[in-house]
Amino acid sequence: MDIFGLDDIILSALKEDVGTGDITTNCCIPCDNRSEAYFLSKEDGVICGIDIAARVFALVDEKIVFSPLKKDGDKVNKGDIIATLSGPSRAILTGERVALNFMQRLSGTATATAKAVESVAGTKAKIADTRKSTPGLRVLEKYAVRVGGGHNPRFNLADGVLIKDNHIAAAGGIAAAVKAARDSVPHVMKIEVETETLDEVRQAIEAGSDIIMLDNMSIEMMAEAVKLINGRALTEASGNMGEKNLAEVAATGVDIISIGALTHSVKSLDISLKFKK
Amino acid sequence: MDIFGLDDIILSALKEDVGTGDITTNCCIPCDNRSEAYFLSKEDGVICGIDIAARVFALVDEKIVFSPLKKDGDKVNKGDIIATLSGPSRAILTGERVALNFMQRLSGTATATAKAVESVAGTKAKIADTRKSTPGLRVLEKYAVRVGGGHNPRFNLADGVLIKDNHIAAAGGIAAAVKAARDSVPHVMKIEVETETLDEVRQAIEAGSDIIMLDNMSIEMMAEAVKLINGRALTEASGNMGEKNLAEVAATGVDIISIGALTHSVKSLDISLKFKK
Amino acid sequence: MDIFGLDDIILSALKEDVGTGDITTNCCIPCDNRSEAYFLSKEDGVICGIDIAARVFALVDEKIVFSPLKKDGDKVNKGDIIATLSGPSRAILTGERVALNFMQRLSGTATATAKAVESVAGTKAKIADTRKSTPGLRVLEKYAVRVGGGHNPRFNLADGVLIKDNHIAAAGGIAAAVKAARDSVPHVMKIEVETETLDEVRQAIEAGSDIIMLDNMSIEMMAEAVKLINGRALTEASGNMGEKNLAEVAATGVDIISIGALTHSVKSLDISLKFKK
Amino acid sequence: MDIFGLDDIILSALKEDVGTGDITTNCCIPCDNRSEAYFLSKEDGVICGIDIAARVFALVDEKIVFSPLKKDGDKVNKGDIIATLSGPSRAILTGERVALNFMQRLSGTATATAKAVESVAGTKAKIADTRKSTPGLRVLEKYAVRVGGGHNPRFNLADGVLIKDNHIAAAGGIAAAVKAARDSVPHVMKIEVETETLDEVRQAIEAGSDIIMLDNMSIEMMAEAVKLINGRALTEASGNMGEKNLAEVAATGVDIISIGALTHSVKSLDISLKFKK
Amino acid sequence: MDIFGLDDIILSALKEDVGTGDITTNCCIPCDNRSEAYFLSKEDGVICGIDIAARVFALVDEKIVFSPLKKDGDKVNKGDIIATLSGPSRAILTGERVALNFMQRLSGTATATAKAVESVAGTKAKIADTRKSTPGLRVLEKYAVRVGGGHNPRFNLADGVLIKDNHIAAAGGIAAAVKAARDSVPHVMKIEVETETLDEVRQAIEAGSDIIMLDNMSIEMMAEAVKLINGRALTEASGNMGEKNLAEVAATGVDIISIGALTHSVKSLDISLKFKK
Amino acid sequence: MDIFGLDDIILSALKEDVGTGDITTNCCIPCDNRSEAYFLSKEDGVICGIDIAARVFALVDEKIVFSPLKKDGDKVNKGDIIATLSGPSRAILTGERVALNFMQRLSGTATATAKAVESVAGTKAKIADTRKSTPGLRVLEKYAVRVGGGHNPRFNLADGVLIKDNHIAAAGGIAAAVKAARDSVPHVMKIEVETETLDEVRQAIEAGSDIIMLDNMSIEMMAEAVKLINGRALTEASGNMGEKNLAEVAATGVDIISIGALTHSVKSLDISLKFKK
Repeated sequence: MDIFGLDDIILSALKEDVGTGDITTNCCIPCDNRSEAYFLSKEDGVICGIDIAARVFALVDEKIVFSPLKKDGDKVNKGDIIATLSGPSRAILTGERVALNFMQRLSGTATATAKAVESVAGTKAKIADTRKSTPGLRVLEKYAVRVGGGHNPRFNLADGVLIKDNHIAAAGGIAAAVKAARDSVPHVMKIEVETETLDEVRQAIEAGSDIIMLDNMSIEMMAEAVKLINGRALTEASGNMGEKNLAEVAATGVDIISIGALTHSVKSLDISLKFKK
Repeated sequence: MDIFGLDDIILSALKEDVGTGDITTNCCIPCDNRSEAYFLSKEDGVICGIDIAARVFALVDEKIVFSPLKKDGDKVNKGDIIATLSGPSRAILTGERVALNFMQRLSGTATATAKAVESVAGTKAKIADTRKSTPGLRVLEKYAVRVGGGHNPRFNLADGVLIKDNHIAAAGGIAAAVKAARDSVPHVMKIEVETETLDEVRQAIEAGSDIIMLDNMSIEMMAEAVKLINGRALTEASGNMGEKNLAEVAATGVDIISIGALTHSVKSLDISLKFKK
Repeated sequence: MDIFGLDDIILSALKEDVGTGDITTNCCIPCDNRSEAYFLSKEDGVICGIDIAARVFALVDEKIVFSPLKKDGDKVNKGDIIATLSGPSRAILTGERVALNFMQRLSGTATATAKAVESVAGTKAKIADTRKSTPGLRVLEKYAVRVGGGHNPRFNLADGVLIKDNHIAAAGGIAAAVKAARDSVPHVMKIEVETETLDEVRQAIEAGSDIIMLDNMSIEMMAEAVKLINGRALTEASGNMGEKNLAEVAATGVDIISIGALTHSVKSLDISLKFKK
Repeated sequence: MDIFGLDDIILSALKEDVGTGDITTNCCIPCDNRSEAYFLSKEDGVICGIDIAARVFALVDEKIVFSPLKKDGDKVNKGDIIATLSGPSRAILTGERVALNFMQRLSGTATATAKAVESVAGTKAKIADTRKSTPGLRVLEKYAVRVGGGHNPRFNLADGVLIKDNHIAAAGGIAAAVKAARDSVPHVMKIEVETETLDEVRQAIEAGSDIIMLDNMSIEMMAEAVKLINGRALTEASGNMGEKNLAEVAATGVDIISIGALTHSVKSLDISLKFKK
Repeated sequence: MDIFGLDDIILSALKEDVGTGDITTNCCIPCDNRSEAYFLSKEDGVICGIDIAARVFALVDEKIVFSPLKKDGDKVNKGDIIATLSGPSRAILTGERVALNFMQRLSGTATATAKAVESVAGTKAKIADTRKSTPGLRVLEKYAVRVGGGHNPRFNLADGVLIKDNHIAAAGGIAAAVKAARDSVPHVMKIEVETETLDEVRQAIEAGSDIIMLDNMSIEMMAEAVKLINGRALTEASGNMGEKNLAEVAATGVDIISIGALTHSVKSLDISLKFKK
Repeated sequence: MDIFGLDDIILSALKEDVGTGDITTNCCIPCDNRSEAYFLSKEDGVICGIDIAARVFALVDEKIVFSPLKKDGDKVNKGDIIATLSGPSRAILTGERVALNFMQRLSGTATATAKAVESVAGTKAKIADTRKSTPGLRVLEKYAVRVGGGHNPRFNLADGVLIKDNHIAAAGGIAAAVKAARDSVPHVMKIEVETETLDEVRQAIEAGSDIIMLDNMSIEMMAEAVKLINGRALTEASGNMGEKNLAEVAATGVDIISIGALTHSVKSLDISLKFKK
């Protein structure tokens, strides 16, 4: 099945990378040459995108045999072999770059997420991503976040009510905005309000918000907000969390910590494809 | 014209982000509300993607007026306003995230490229990108590299002959591989050979390579290789250049320095959209 | 903007209806002929799809001027003129059938929804649709339901947790299923459980369900269930509601009544296009 | 082969229904769970769309085994099992709604067509459909009409010449319109003229029409028209035939009876998917 | 409107020709340069494709002004100017090749058709094309045939019944095949039978064929066949007509002469784009 | 793999040819009929497109067995059998025309190319194609040129720098244009200049062009130009080469002869599909 359009994403990437043909390979490598190769991790991290890499090669040439030695979510160390593959040399070379481009990037996100999850271990805080993802790759990046142990609160603007300052201003205050939402959005949805001050937090509680976002607050203010809310709503810490001490944030008692950098500023994991001699 | 498919990329990103509709905005903001807003740079860098952002809003609602105050390639400082926009509030809110996702990422690449270019100022070395780009966004990322002052040697595998170790092994040596390429690739193309040792460099010169890649060499070996080649071929430094002292690399006399990290490990530039009260 | 792909839907419908060309019109009508025409309602109902009809003609020929006299949601009586149009005769004839096919069908759904809404007037019950929509037209049909005064709880399977008998069986009971959902679904979502007996209703309350669906219950059992729940969860009446006395259902005190027939068994509203002589 | 684009139609329907994922199933059903299930007819009718349902599940997960017990066109009674299926529980649940949405609708059309065919049994009249079909589903709905025993005179505007009042007016009369058509349309096509009065019928005969449509005529006028035409052209009864006594219409001796309601106002056949415990 | 997908065809052609960008133009021509240019016919013929050329440039850059001096179907002589254009130099150069590729090819077909039409002037024979067209360009090539004065009997296999030897063999003879067709194909269609001998012609008449194709017959046999048929069916001459003396064929009295070479073996008309100095 | 979109091209061609269905075959041939058939060459030439034909039938019905007796590039004589196929009769008839349309056209190009290559046998001249290809079929036509023994210098405008008169005029002379290119195009590319006079040839040499095109020159001037260049650049003969004596052109010592007519004016090879009785 390809309900999520992954084959389209992969095929576009292949077209983008192959253009009108791999001229170097076609002139140097006989078309019946076969090779054995393997993916090697060149640093420590959490691997993600193995199935995507496998699918890249399957789309290039179904005669390639791809054998994973790890699975998505596994920790890898520098020097670990992630998967082996064997088959027509030309096809392996044609798929190499695209498979790496996907796997390195997704492993980068999974690794960063796993680090964040580890930072808050022992607390009730969940690590979540945002909509600050790479255009065209959201479904894959959110998968990488889950692989790293994180959560995906919203895939898109239809997935939940999140009332921000502009909505509040237009609606005429927090109470009015929450009421407008309660009246018209589907009954299956919770309502979240973004707050930046304790006063706004108070208004959000009174308005009956289901979730309260604590945006760009200091650790102290966040702790006070959590105390104020006192379980009457879920709490979500937000705002440059990628640069914060997450253990401290979690210690305030928030339920969710959402981090844009998990997807908007990713350092790829160093992986390479080696051919057996 | 949209020969390069940018509208498709933008529209996909909008569909990905909007899903079946922006339910928060639709319930809180009256449909005839109008707003004034502006893009604010929250750190120093080189801006890129303004036209893409403009196009995002044009595709969301042609009634939005987008007025750029900067142009792609301009340096921006923290606090600079990049563009203003005015129009239907709902449409501005719907396009906000997608416009930012493009602009922040492309500005990240342009900024990193500009820094690299600056590092080698005064030398003949050109900064170039690689095929280690984000699947689906290559045409945009390569544009961002140019905006930052870099070069795009190859868009895809059809764009030039680059003979690597696997090609050499399959062809039976550097001389044989170069000859195979010379015999069969279009006469309009130059031939590049990847080398890792001085001995390989020597073979590449003798084989008549037009360009010689010096891959993962120490600064010293690179300098020696350049001396050995002595103008008989163009030279390209490659291999984890993102972590090297580029001034030292350039000082070896290489013609091109290609850096994968310009596109594979990008830190987004911090930009936000603010509404005028 | 066409984030929701409406132009694609309309253009597909035009291609389907026009094939390789309207041969009758092309042989009988001179290409510079102009006509005035109007859409006439031939029965009472609630009109829906006027903008779609307008867009059909705009896509056929931008020289057609389409002037609506009604707007979506207006009640029309037999004999009412819905819109007038003038322009190239050939283009009007080419667009006629497709415009009618959309408008008649959507008006059928809007009319049926409005009737249901009217049946429960004065109660707190909201009329809602289901996922039993026409393949490919869900976004339009759900719009027609809203135009008729109804609600759209779920656009798709990602839009909310709805635990049915098969989920319960697989999870090992209602309590276990609700707990599994609470642990893993995004914190922004409510959890709904489908029940068919009062015992199941009791379990659903105890498990902490946010919403309880009362499926295929008699009016009496439904009333008892509502009493049992006593405001601890929202209640949704479901199961062949298209054939029920909705006033009786609403009188049980349920919050939502969902009706598949609004979209799966629609009688088109009778509308025709007339040319002025 | 998918020359008719059915896979595209089915995949669109799946994307529409699944969105970013079936969150309920994913949290409650272990991914290696397997189920046995069956489609049950809950009322009498003519079944249609079994192959489409099979293809829905094949596209969702090729590991699902779908075993039809009926074939398209078979009469089913309340309580009949239409097909059984076994395979991964998650995939069955994901495909359920889409498979039902197709099968119920197409069976609705096939059932209505079969009823019409039965009404005219023993006469020479053939039951035909029109272009009043659901946008995007014409090829499937016309198939359902054939399955029910009906005919598909025209798939689109290129499929035959049908001269209506507007064409006649523009061409300057029936004789002129038929001559214009005879002169320019491909020689492989017959020419049909729509008439509403006996005088128009006479003109259509004299003009040499191959087929004469009797539109919105009373039974008496229709009988007289057939007598007048006396075999010199085929005759087609048209105009709200869905609400007429078809046996009476057929008794007038017309060759074809075309009924828009077969596709524009369909009552879905009640079918459900049951899981074996 | 683009019901016939012409914009898709043109945009594909542009993507195919431009690749990742026109690097020569981009480095040599300043982006604000403007040019005046014109299309020059370099041989005599019938011009076709002017609107397509205009659309090519409109899709490349809407600032190009394209002014036709001829219209499709006009005879042009060597040295005639077909159209002028002015606008951004880069855009004109980018669109040049694609516009020429369309216009030269379509003019080639229109010219060949016009020659064939002229050969049979004064007879009742119509010149027709076949389905031997270039994959992907049928709609345009059939248009070019009409522009040259020819006819398009069939766009595709759904457009008419044409019973060939394989159909006859499978059905058990001409009579049986015609009867099978009469019983099941839509009543709006005529039935054509392909014949190669006079005996087959006789059978086709007796079977009640509406059209009889005389395939690969000598002029003498064709004349005899026409006499035999004696107006009871239309007659179509077929089989390597591109190499026949068409006047002789027409003199046999056939109604239609269909010529595959009009589309399968086209000599492009020599046209070039010149820039005004 | 279908990186080059061949399946899309083939499927479009099938949709174009089949329309809403092959009505003749469907009414005359029972759906379980099976046939044996073969492709027969009706004239001498070089065959090309066998794999495409095989893929056409595979896309129509995977039950068809296609057995090639020749391979692309083989010479065929009148009467040779190219391939046999067996399977469902309906499917073979449905794919017949499309398979032939591809194979006849590509074989036409391969045959013409092979003839050109033979004309220059024994010289160093290579035969090359141009961008004057059929819109939408470039990748296939360039393949046919290679199959015939020719070369593909450029797939598109990104594939090489070719400075023509308009570029020279805009840049301010040949020297300036070559310098502009050298400064900005990727270092992997050679630079070619089009010349029409010996003076331009001289300027092109001095400017350091890598390749010099000799456009529309007489044989004598071409010979003089080659002497003048004396190996300092590659030479390409161009301009109506399809009508020239290629042996004479090659005798001037040029490196490449590029011929637009290989793709813009192709005579299809006569091939037909025969059914075994």
